[in-house]
Amino acid sequence: MLHQSSSVSATTRSTSTSSSKYSSRTPPNSRDTSQEGLSWLMTHSWLHYFKTVPGEKLERWVPGVPRCQPLPSQQQRLQPPQAHCSQPLLAKLGMSSKPDVLPVPNPGARHWAETAGDPGAGKPEKADVSLWELQMGGSPGCRAPSTGAVKPRSQRGIPAETAGMRVAVVGAGVSGLTATKCCLDEGLEPTCFEQSQDIGGVWRYTEYIEAGRPSLYPSVISNTSKEMSAFSDFPYPEDFSVFLPNAQLLDYLRRYAEHFSLRGHIKFGTTVVSIRKRPDFATTGQWDVVTEAGGKQTSHVFDAVMVCIGNCSEPSLPLHCFPGIEKFQGQYFHSRQYKHPEVFQGKRVLVVGMGNSGADIAVEASRVAAKVTLCTSQGAWVISRVFDHGYPWDMVFNTRLMSLIRNHLPHPLSWGLINHRANQWFKHENYGLQPEKRCLVRDPVLNDDLPSYILTGRITIKPSVKEFKDNSVVFHNCPEEEPIDIVVFCTGYNVSFPFLEETVVKMENKHASLYKYVFPTHLQRPTLAVLGLIKPLGAIMPVSEMQARWVTRVFKGLCQLPPQSVMEKEVNENKKIQLQWFGLSFDEVLKTDWLAYLDQLTSFIGAKPSVLRLLCRDPRLALTIFFGPCTPYQYRLVGPGRWEGARQAILTQWDRTLKPTRTRVSANSSSLCPSLLTVVGFLLLLATLLFGFQ
Amino acid sequence: MLHQSSSVSATTRSTSTSSSKYSSRTPPNSRDTSQEGLSWLMTHSWLHYFKTVPGEKLERWVPGVPRCQPLPSQQQRLQPPQAHCSQPLLAKLGMSSKPDVLPVPNPGARHWAETAGDPGAGKPEKADVSLWELQMGGSPGCRAPSTGAVKPRSQRGIPAETAGMRVAVVGAGVSGLTATKCCLDEGLEPTCFEQSQDIGGVWRYTEYIEAGRPSLYPSVISNTSKEMSAFSDFPYPEDFSVFLPNAQLLDYLRRYAEHFSLRGHIKFGTTVVSIRKRPDFATTGQWDVVTEAGGKQTSHVFDAVMVCIGNCSEPSLPLHCFPGIEKFQGQYFHSRQYKHPEVFQGKRVLVVGMGNSGADIAVEASRVAAKVTLCTSQGAWVISRVFDHGYPWDMVFNTRLMSLIRNHLPHPLSWGLINHRANQWFKHENYGLQPEKRCLVRDPVLNDDLPSYILTGRITIKPSVKEFKDNSVVFHNCPEEEPIDIVVFCTGYNVSFPFLEETVVKMENKHASLYKYVFPTHLQRPTLAVLGLIKPLGAIMPVSEMQARWVTRVFKGLCQLPPQSVMEKEVNENKKIQLQWFGLSFDEVLKTDWLAYLDQLTSFIGAKPSVLRLLCRDPRLALTIFFGPCTPYQYRLVGPGRWEGARQAILTQWDRTLKPTRTRVSANSSSLCPSLLTVVGFLLLLATLLFGFQ
Repeated sequence: MLHQSSSVSATTRSTSTSSSKYSSRTPPNSRDTSQEGLSWLMTHSWLHYFKTVPGEKLERWVPGVPRCQPLPSQQQRLQPPQAHCSQPLLAKLGMSSKPDVLPVPNPGARHWAETAGDPGAGKPEKADVSLWELQMGGSPGCRAPSTGAVKPRSQRGIPAETAGMRVAVVGAGVSGLTATKCCLDEGLEPTCFEQSQDIGGVWRYTEYIEAGRPSLYPSVISNTSKEMSAFSDFPYPEDFSVFLPNAQLLDYLRRYAEHFSLRGHIKFGTTVVSIRKRPDFATTGQWDVVTEAGGKQTSHVFDAVMVCIGNCSEPSLPLHCFPGIEKFQGQYFHSRQYKHPEVFQGKRVLVVGMGNSGADIAVEASRVAAKVTLCTSQGAWVISRVFDHGYPWDMVFNTRLMSLIRNHLPHPLSWGLINHRANQWFKHENYGLQPEKRCLVRDPVLNDDLPSYILTGRITIKPSVKEFKDNSVVFHNCPEEEPIDIVVFCTGYNVSFPFLEETVVKMENKHASLYKYVFPTHLQRPTLAVLGLIKPLGAIMPVSEMQARWVTRVFKGLCQLPPQSVMEKEVNENKKIQLQWFGLSFDEVLKTDWLAYLDQLTSFIGAKPSVLRLLCRDPRLALTIFFGPCTPYQYRLVGPGRWEGARQAILTQWDRTLKPTRTRVSANSSSLCPSLLTVVGFLLLLATLLFGFQ
Repeated sequence: MLHQSSSVSATTRSTSTSSSKYSSRTPPNSRDTSQEGLSWLMTHSWLHYFKTVPGEKLERWVPGVPRCQPLPSQQQRLQPPQAHCSQPLLAKLGMSSKPDVLPVPNPGARHWAETAGDPGAGKPEKADVSLWELQMGGSPGCRAPSTGAVKPRSQRGIPAETAGMRVAVVGAGVSGLTATKCCLDEGLEPTCFEQSQDIGGVWRYTEYIEAGRPSLYPSVISNTSKEMSAFSDFPYPEDFSVFLPNAQLLDYLRRYAEHFSLRGHIKFGTTVVSIRKRPDFATTGQWDVVTEAGGKQTSHVFDAVMVCIGNCSEPSLPLHCFPGIEKFQGQYFHSRQYKHPEVFQGKRVLVVGMGNSGADIAVEASRVAAKVTLCTSQGAWVISRVFDHGYPWDMVFNTRLMSLIRNHLPHPLSWGLINHRANQWFKHENYGLQPEKRCLVRDPVLNDDLPSYILTGRITIKPSVKEFKDNSVVFHNCPEEEPIDIVVFCTGYNVSFPFLEETVVKMENKHASLYKYVFPTHLQRPTLAVLGLIKPLGAIMPVSEMQARWVTRVFKGLCQLPPQSVMEKEVNENKKIQLQWFGLSFDEVLKTDWLAYLDQLTSFIGAKPSVLRLLCRDPRLALTIFFGPCTPYQYRLVGPGRWEGARQAILTQWDRTLKPTRTRVSANSSSLCPSLLTVVGFLLLLATLLFGFQ
């Protein structure tokens, strides 16, 4: 069977803002912002986003280094966040019922909220626990801290006293960095082990391929826009590109590490050799971690472990699926080994696999090669970064409104809509890219160039390989042989954890049995988590970050996991769902709805914003959150780790998006009646209220 | 003032079919064809094209070498084609009134039509003379032959006996080749002078720039699709790309020359030094042509001259418009000198001018340069080859229905619609590309890559250059200097005719005073024509061809030009119109509506198809012609030079379009209720009948 590739370029990506730059910038033009929202509303029957209410003047950006909300004191931290259950209807409308476990307001939480200067600070925040039960059909995750007034549902709690808890973080890429940062935020003591000499993981380009490290080709550009790919309390500088070349993204990560002083917690040149449960694991949850640096092994004891090694290090090259490859006289290699297109100069190239890497490499090769053929067994929906009216695809696709529609419509219908939208750019059938089974929709490939390269004859699409011959290849359903000089297998990556015992993270049909794609379901104590393994249809940065925020609070006992049976049931159900809707191939098993997943994680820790509640206090913000792109700053408005810059970051998200491309201003600018926006906006709001959301 | 570039890549382009390949191919699948039309109709509120009526089985392709209709005998040729005038309303409906000059049917024409096997052959064809008067507001051009029953309106006729008339064709590019071919079709004796050693003109890529010859960069791909860029009796092979790399287009031209045995009429390595009126020009219309080959000059006498030298040989580099350029320390050159992007490796590049070449070069440079800035004073609408639902832009844009809408709506409204459509891909304002004056719409730039390159930060758009400094540039409305290493001036080309006296073709503000962009208005005899100078928004091949078909018949006296005063009036009015709607800059003065222009030229010679008349005889063909793309084969259905393969070529145009990209067929294919197509199609037909067309 020929599998689809999903390489480095396929993964979601993002950038960072230097704190000094960020704090010193002047406010963008508020008029432009209004017009954006207006024009969009007026030209769309679907409201993809909502920016701001026209007429309301945008506040000036308040200079100040972006910072996290100071953590509550130890006492506060050990207070339960709030009630955990509510009636379904109320929950659906965003209004929790009376807490049935903790009926009295939480003084600690209130005090903390007041300190943070939250506009709604007087009222205690509620952990939106019941909502995800309703929305996702999963079992409850985090209900209440393991200590305090609420008795833990599970008996597998961890000690209440977690200050100084030592956490091993494996890897200093996107996930490792944010894991380290979140540990520090929660008062844990992280030690990050990075086998190379620098941070950045997959985003640090090196000319030579290093064993065990991801490898990038120099032309890789992030697939997700900067506003959607930011860590939630650290926006990108406004002059960074909308989609980021890999060097700029690495720059962001460096700024992030610098700003939050993470480097001091990272041990470079240190490989994790093994992670084993300690003999008293059942009671302590501790791990023996053996590392190697400079040829010398060291053993450590850690209270918890966060595995942040990504999934782009071990190439999958199933040669047995390609009959005759052993007699093929030409050159072949895995996409991981690709760096520059010169290798294809004047050659007849075959690219096997239609993932993001496959499409990227085919496009690059076609500029120098004699002929480029891209073969795919299943086809793929191709979407462009330049989406509706030129707005970044993910800022249109990942809005709360769109997510609501997607998750509430019957699956075939919602996917049908997406497919219809995908065919608006070009009819996939006419370009040989039509997915094999319409209802088994696999994740789209992100490529701006592929259709025009096909239309201009630079790339030819073919079905999957039937057989290799000495100097040619035969495709299924094609009688003639195609002469080929060089083959690139873009067949994706395997997921593996060489330093872990197989029993810790069970791999089954390339599916890691992890609760919420994070926690092994069968450990006696939840002191090991895998971060950044999931590949949602959106940016990976906020996903890793929200995972880390949740995980650290689980480690501390402030959030609890459900019983093993419940977790296993959900994992198995997820497998089935994905088998049904996505088809089961390489990486697709790890897909889920990006926004719903983030909402779920943040609801566990009480950081999910409630649109309805906001609507009364700050209607403009509420509308922006609901209709606009779900930028990660939304998850710093309330709850632990609240960031006072979040509101302003949300209201200025479009200014930072448009800044790098609006570099020439025409004398005539669009001006449409602003009142229409208001009317349409409120009508839609009413409609959605009836429809139900939180 | 900074002008926009319009280089080689900007000009329209096309391909050829080898006759053997063409004649031997098997018929494409008719089911696919129906589905195309159906799906398109069902997903569009505007009917961009109409392919075929579902349920009707597509006839098998009849093998046979495509060939031109045998020319009528000399006697037939000298018969008037038909009546020249009709009542306006009838003409608008495509029904000419009774001929008021030649009331009796023309036996010669009838005999000829019967010979050709025309389904409607019994009825004499009518020259659709009155329509263009109505539609274009111009003065009548060709009314009747100079001999026979109709007395010429002008006294400036040419001798009736034109057999053996010697015609000098200057240049063997696209226009020169088709001019030579049309001369042969009409029984004239062409001698084509080509200064280089091969055919192809602008489409023949050479690594080194040759003086006086156009220069191409190797990555140039045609801007117009193959079906729209074909010569009208010579479709492209179905396996050629939809948009053609320059080498493939040259291949087409070679096949064309081969198929019609043109090479024997071309004198290679021969430069035309001067073309002067002979002393007896007023009576003979003859020209003294001096050529030079191998250092030796030769003088010839020709009865007529066709100038086919294009307009991409003399670069326009107005350095005086760029203050400080003399002290700029970096490198600079005109786009004509650009060949490969390596010259930009690691440099900071400034591309001046936002034409097709400017956009192409900026995109290529950005793949290797440190930074690329593209500056434009006026901005431009950018459109992609991959248009609505992935269909080629010109096959959607240049349909009779769309042309009817464009030409009947008030200009600002129709351009507004086009602009709205252009902004659907991306909002030009957000990308710094918004044209300076909305109502002064300049021609769009065709580029598939530019928006995504801007969004990913690889290209930055800036306003026009204010001043050059030693190693930097300052833009208007931008305070900071931008460091620059290398500048490419994509400032277009000048039009000049060095071998002609200035009085022959008057140039005024870069506007050649030519009647219908072809004939000098003030010559005593119409024996000199300029071909391919116009740059319409569509393919240049059919334009040059229709010009040549008209010109040869004017030379022969079968078509007549209006009096000088009428021609001059129209030329001056056109100048004004274009000044008003397009703005007056470099090449835009030479723009006009592609389809309307072709209709006009072919109506002069009686080769314009009448949709209404066809509707009775061949409704399927009529619908395809009206709703579908205006492929040039439409102009070989009737009249002189009728080609019996034209109907089939039209009905299979989508098969040839889809063949090179539908290279992988998915198991599931779209199937929608075909009856809907029929209903919608006929409803629309009725609506358009009421609206009025011919």
